[in-house]
Amino acid sequence: MDMFSERAKKIFDMAGADALLVETDFLRRYLTGFLSTDGYAVVEKDKCTLVVDSRYFEAAEKQLAGSGVKIVEGVYAKAEELLSGYHTIGVPYPFLSLANANRLTENGFALKDCMPAFKSAMTVKSAHEIALIQKACVIAEEAFIKLLPEIKEGMTESAVAALLEYNMRSLGAEGVSFDTIVAFGANGSVPHHETGKTKLKFGDPVLIDFGCKVEGYCSDITRTFLFGDDKKHEKFKTVYAEVLKAHELVKENLRAGMTGREADDIARSHLKKSDLAQYFTHSLGHGVGLQIHEYPLLTPRGEEVLKDGMVFSDEPGVYLKGEFGIRIEDTVRLEEGKAVSFMGKTERNLIIL
Amino acid sequence: MDMFSERAKKIFDMAGADALLVETDFLRRYLTGFLSTDGYAVVEKDKCTLVVDSRYFEAAEKQLAGSGVKIVEGVYAKAEELLSGYHTIGVPYPFLSLANANRLTENGFALKDCMPAFKSAMTVKSAHEIALIQKACVIAEEAFIKLLPEIKEGMTESAVAALLEYNMRSLGAEGVSFDTIVAFGANGSVPHHETGKTKLKFGDPVLIDFGCKVEGYCSDITRTFLFGDDKKHEKFKTVYAEVLKAHELVKENLRAGMTGREADDIARSHLKKSDLAQYFTHSLGHGVGLQIHEYPLLTPRGEEVLKDGMVFSDEPGVYLKGEFGIRIEDTVRLEEGKAVSFMGKTERNLIIL
Repeated sequence: MDMFSERAKKIFDMAGADALLVETDFLRRYLTGFLSTDGYAVVEKDKCTLVVDSRYFEAAEKQLAGSGVKIVEGVYAKAEELLSGYHTIGVPYPFLSLANANRLTENGFALKDCMPAFKSAMTVKSAHEIALIQKACVIAEEAFIKLLPEIKEGMTESAVAALLEYNMRSLGAEGVSFDTIVAFGANGSVPHHETGKTKLKFGDPVLIDFGCKVEGYCSDITRTFLFGDDKKHEKFKTVYAEVLKAHELVKENLRAGMTGREADDIARSHLKKSDLAQYFTHSLGHGVGLQIHEYPLLTPRGEEVLKDGMVFSDEPGVYLKGEFGIRIEDTVRLEEGKAVSFMGKTERNLIIL
Repeated sequence: MDMFSERAKKIFDMAGADALLVETDFLRRYLTGFLSTDGYAVVEKDKCTLVVDSRYFEAAEKQLAGSGVKIVEGVYAKAEELLSGYHTIGVPYPFLSLANANRLTENGFALKDCMPAFKSAMTVKSAHEIALIQKACVIAEEAFIKLLPEIKEGMTESAVAALLEYNMRSLGAEGVSFDTIVAFGANGSVPHHETGKTKLKFGDPVLIDFGCKVEGYCSDITRTFLFGDDKKHEKFKTVYAEVLKAHELVKENLRAGMTGREADDIARSHLKKSDLAQYFTHSLGHGVGLQIHEYPLLTPRGEEVLKDGMVFSDEPGVYLKGEFGIRIEDTVRLEEGKAVSFMGKTERNLIIL
């Protein structure tokens, strides 16, 4: 059985519905491998059908030739037609709009949440998925290495983001996995700073959080460094060392079988020792896959048990308002019970440009 | 009253609910002007509150100081707390997930669709919104003009897309409004071709569909041109002239008061004369605003009446399978009853590089 038929079958079996109707883009892509802004995947016991309109039909037929996925040209009515005769339809509650849910129930269907089935299947990545995430991570790292000598005094945050995104695209990324965050100086103390017109000055700390996509799969990486050392960075360097230690401790000590909370605590308890945990204002990490934020959640409340094949970020950060922010992030996976980073090319020790 | 308070009040009054709860990113941004991946806007009779978590709180306080919007730090529970005492909550049915709808109803709230109110307010743009779309259009056009001499034989579609996106970013765009489509040769005959590794050859038709965002507002533009004239382009030139004529006729003859269908028919009936309408396989246009696809719809079934202040694409196209595709698109607005293009810098007559 081909990869996509296997996925569809696995989720169908777990969902416990008569058929599944999926219109969310990334879930459709997971089931079929095909990317489109609109369309419907209908999963029946032994069949997965992709319904796309005329804009996508030709491309879908070409790309999915030989896969187990059947292609039908049409819009919503065509998808609902495929459901006729079925009673309970599996739909992903967190991604189905209330408007579309109402349309289904008004037309006599009973609904059942199939998101738990998707979540269970998607949280543990296959070797194929791991390979795509690895590619997205390599591109992100190479783009960053290419960027470093291109950074000049006076450039805006937006200009640096534009260059980095260009590098990722040029290296083969299909796009960014989220809007690149570039923060100069004290802007870094806002964890999700909006990249803007601030100009780079000698001595500025620079925080860059970025990632790209390969066949839909995301990478996520953050590096913080100094643009020249104006010798006023004792505190920055001290904090950097603690954040880096927290980041590395996670990679060293994380084990399959721990919960997300226990993983988070590896970093948090280290930062407590130097009284920095109070400035670590977000969670340690989140799953990474076809979405940039997915399961598992590595938070102080994360009760999910971490397993081999899971992919997530390891991103402790410390934010000192008005001074600076430091975040160091790798995308990592669990393999043979231990954490393995996808990042092997970029320096994690403090870079001073 | 400031701009955002006015918007919130207008939508609240139309919605006919006790309070509104909005978590969809672009609707939150419409109400508050603030961009974040997560958060909640709660609209009460005389008050709009933005609930954001610690990642965004500082940035929101800074950006929205002096606006009528109140900022509260928190997650979902905080938003629901603000709703206590209210019974009927306005939520946008096409954008509220069934999971979140169920959470609200399980907690005793009645729901009412407030999307018609948003749609009614958002479809007609204010002068401020028109100015932002104008900026996004100018950047897109200037980026394209800068791109043309940068295009060289042997470049891949992805490389051209990367350069164009870099140009838009460098010129001040906050990002792309959708994944740039670059199609060489016969790839153009797939209306939504996935930009890939095809290399540019002398004589290729090139179709580029692109746009960028300024403060969330999108531009949308398509240009089709020849990369060198290998003298085998008689048919291409003939069809180009017809598509261009269809495109221009819309700008000349479209009037406020027409329906989307009548607008679509201006282009479609012109293409019928040369037997090309059968290859015009999509609709004439779609609204453009904080989303790249919004209302009004200019389709053969569009019964919505077009009004001053509406902004939409004028994009007839003809696709000859295996040969080429031609699409010519401007973003336009209705002003004093007539169509006015946002595009004034790029050539619409056939460019031969």
